[in-house]
Amino acid sequence: MAHFVRPVEIIKVTANNRELVSDLVATEEPLEIRIGYGQLTERQQKSLSVTMRTPGHDFELALGFLFTEGVIQSLDQVESIKYCEDVGRAEERENVVRVELKPEVIIDFEKLQRNFYTTSSCGVCGKSSIEAVKVNCTAISVNERINADLIHTLPEKLREAQRVFEHTGGLHASGLFNLKGELILLREDVGRHNALDKVVGAMLLKNELPLSNYMLLVSGRTSFELVQKAALAGIPLLAAIGAPSSLAVNLAEDCGMTLIGFIRDGKFNIYSGKERIDR
Amino acid sequence: MAHFVRPVEIIKVTANNRELVSDLVATEEPLEIRIGYGQLTERQQKSLSVTMRTPGHDFELALGFLFTEGVIQSLDQVESIKYCEDVGRAEERENVVRVELKPEVIIDFEKLQRNFYTTSSCGVCGKSSIEAVKVNCTAISVNERINADLIHTLPEKLREAQRVFEHTGGLHASGLFNLKGELILLREDVGRHNALDKVVGAMLLKNELPLSNYMLLVSGRTSFELVQKAALAGIPLLAAIGAPSSLAVNLAEDCGMTLIGFIRDGKFNIYSGKERIDR
Repeated sequence: MAHFVRPVEIIKVTANNRELVSDLVATEEPLEIRIGYGQLTERQQKSLSVTMRTPGHDFELALGFLFTEGVIQSLDQVESIKYCEDVGRAEERENVVRVELKPEVIIDFEKLQRNFYTTSSCGVCGKSSIEAVKVNCTAISVNERINADLIHTLPEKLREAQRVFEHTGGLHASGLFNLKGELILLREDVGRHNALDKVVGAMLLKNELPLSNYMLLVSGRTSFELVQKAALAGIPLLAAIGAPSSLAVNLAEDCGMTLIGFIRDGKFNIYSGKERIDR
Repeated sequence: MAHFVRPVEIIKVTANNRELVSDLVATEEPLEIRIGYGQLTERQQKSLSVTMRTPGHDFELALGFLFTEGVIQSLDQVESIKYCEDVGRAEERENVVRVELKPEVIIDFEKLQRNFYTTSSCGVCGKSSIEAVKVNCTAISVNERINADLIHTLPEKLREAQRVFEHTGGLHASGLFNLKGELILLREDVGRHNALDKVVGAMLLKNELPLSNYMLLVSGRTSFELVQKAALAGIPLLAAIGAPSSLAVNLAEDCGMTLIGFIRDGKFNIYSGKERIDR
């Protein structure tokens, strides 16, 4: 809990009053993700990413990131994961995670470069980015149909679980539900892509990927990047409290994913994959 | 207007009904920012960034990005700015902007590298990132005091202006106000940092930087990155409808910026720089 929030002194201003009070804000700290790779005789390391994240579940975040960016495909490829203890000041040590890959894992850095280009930064053309993702993502087939009534119940379950963690109004939530609509896992972060990566990393650690029998609900809006990460994890249904972007809709359609938005007040919108939703 | 939104066919689901309707979503497309630099005898180009953005005000976005990332310090350094016409398919041409810098502009790519590292990705330690920003940002001094009553009025003015543009629920807004509380400029984007960069770029084009006599209101939450960009533009007061992160508060304090959050229902919180707020 301590990790997620920081105490601050603030001034609460109302029309007639001004009061110094203690409050909590969501913690934001950088996390650098490094990998160790290569043959035993010639191990190398590479810094893959620095992301602004809320500390906590850092190993899940690192593993989820490696998976949703296409660096690893299974937990078998990971030798170990730890904080780097040889990094500068004491308070920085938990800001660098090193994932040791098995010697037999071969990384195509050129492909990786392209992949990074099409994700956090994305390619130059929406179309070619979508094509790149389509090649990488597990084909998402329609396995089971979900009742519309079930969808309406998801946001309240997410909020209910968030009440335990949410003191700050500053965290994005990502909740994984089974097809009966039960919340399996909740992760929160100042970055919405991190909250999703933490969910994927947690399930990777349990050897439960691809997530073809789950639904994911995110607290905010859906972007190209979120749909891309969900698609790589094999999630057939992505729902959001907020709105999707145009490229989120396009990519979901092309991947065969059901994309839902604006679940509020007993209503929701289906942007793609309507055949999965029964009434 | 056409740029900002895309039509989609969606299914609106309520408890008793399921209806196919036309709707609008916020457009998300990648924008690559390239610079041309070097002596006339030996011009070079470099791709600096690819960001997912809502098309429209692309030149402002590119210039604002170059400014808030510390690549340029004034409009005098810019020779010209245009879309790259030699890029692939027709529909991709407005996704690449090239900014030609004057031959005398010298770019310290090593420093730039460090700078990028501390911004979009941020440095490994919150502290060293903050130190890096402090060096670069204009010292923000307390020039004028703002009445608390004026702060309460800002969100409604932003929403009023957004009504014209906002059809989708999917856009972040960034509104620049003068010290009388009049809205000077509104920019919207799927990316909150892009909305801010567009405001800064627009004011750079008018030769009005630093923005020491303005206040900025953002529709969402405030992160380290947003405070950093606002600080580099010399904005003394950053207000948000949502919550700040811990690092946003730390950086605002260190830069002498007034940071306000949760402006709602006649209340708001001051996280730093309380001396600027009168009642």
